[in-house]
Amino acid sequence: MSHEDPLRDAVRQLARFPGIGERTAQRMAYWLLRQPPDVAQEISRAVGALHAGMKRCGTCCNIAGSDPCPICAAAPRNTGVVCVVERPQDVAAIEQSSAHRGRYHVLDGAISPLDGVGPDELRIRELLIRVHHGELQEAVIATDPDVEGDATALYLASLLKPLGVRVTRLAHGISVGTEIEYADRSSVARALENRREL
Amino acid sequence: MSHEDPLRDAVRQLARFPGIGERTAQRMAYWLLRQPPDVAQEISRAVGALHAGMKRCGTCCNIAGSDPCPICAAAPRNTGVVCVVERPQDVAAIEQSSAHRGRYHVLDGAISPLDGVGPDELRIRELLIRVHHGELQEAVIATDPDVEGDATALYLASLLKPLGVRVTRLAHGISVGTEIEYADRSSVARALENRREL
Repeated sequence: MSHEDPLRDAVRQLARFPGIGERTAQRMAYWLLRQPPDVAQEISRAVGALHAGMKRCGTCCNIAGSDPCPICAAAPRNTGVVCVVERPQDVAAIEQSSAHRGRYHVLDGAISPLDGVGPDELRIRELLIRVHHGELQEAVIATDPDVEGDATALYLASLLKPLGVRVTRLAHGISVGTEIEYADRSSVARALENRREL
Repeated sequence: MSHEDPLRDAVRQLARFPGIGERTAQRMAYWLLRQPPDVAQEISRAVGALHAGMKRCGTCCNIAGSDPCPICAAAPRNTGVVCVVERPQDVAAIEQSSAHRGRYHVLDGAISPLDGVGPDELRIRELLIRVHHGELQEAVIATDPDVEGDATALYLASLLKPLGVRVTRLAHGISVGTEIEYADRSSVARALENRREL
């Protein structure tokens, strides 16, 4: 590998990223060559430091720079309301809405028997520990609106309700800014199903 | 910068690549975190080694792992026919066709008065040196089929022809595999203009 042309090596490495094909990787590498060498060094440093700097939060299982993660460590947050998501990046998306003032729990996937992912493969045990510590009053299930996400939400509800936890799920409907004419069929169906009294 | 969350740092750095937005950079970083740490290390190493390992070839001005570049160093290649391209990546594209058995010359751009790029900003002087060394019998101009590429081709022709160099240009027409119905207007126009006797 060290005997390979550094350009071809860089292209091959960049093409490992999902969604980055050979062509795009080549454009990226040639772009790097046109920049001052600092740019490549800074990108290299940041990518190389990624793993060492990130940890699993022992409480919410999110990936963060510290354990406990900044959200679990933030004292003023409402600890009783926990938003349950499939992936760490979902935490970022929900945080951006500024509408959830509680904490999170990252499942690291969704129940998908076809892919061999059952409840034991998810971080549900860690969630139950939080319930037993009396931390949870409400679990806001924010799994994806697909078969796996729906199955996971139902499973969690059947598990948590008997333990006295209120279980809710994110509303699904027509997304804000979408004209009804252009909304997809399933979103319209969900929006009708979940219609609210005015 | 070193006090920043390593994840956010990596996202910010990856988003510097052209065509990689914040969202894609985030997907790339989270993907890296799900891989064994080796993957990030290998990508980091390759990106970091890119500049140090690449040089300008003193003959053809291409960017390569060695000077002279492997193409200029390859003895059996026809030195008399030199394909003149705008960018290093154009060399790779033409090499893949296996149809050019001569050498290359990388101009590092095309004449574009609006962008302040005149002939002096391109590596035309280096091309003339090769002519004076008696290296060139034919210059195959492979600049892009746009205003800048056309202007550069005409300029080079006016410069090289009086020096006794045969100047040709890549044929433009309907690309192989394109049905005429779907070919763009300019390609059809060029194809008609350059039609050949059967």
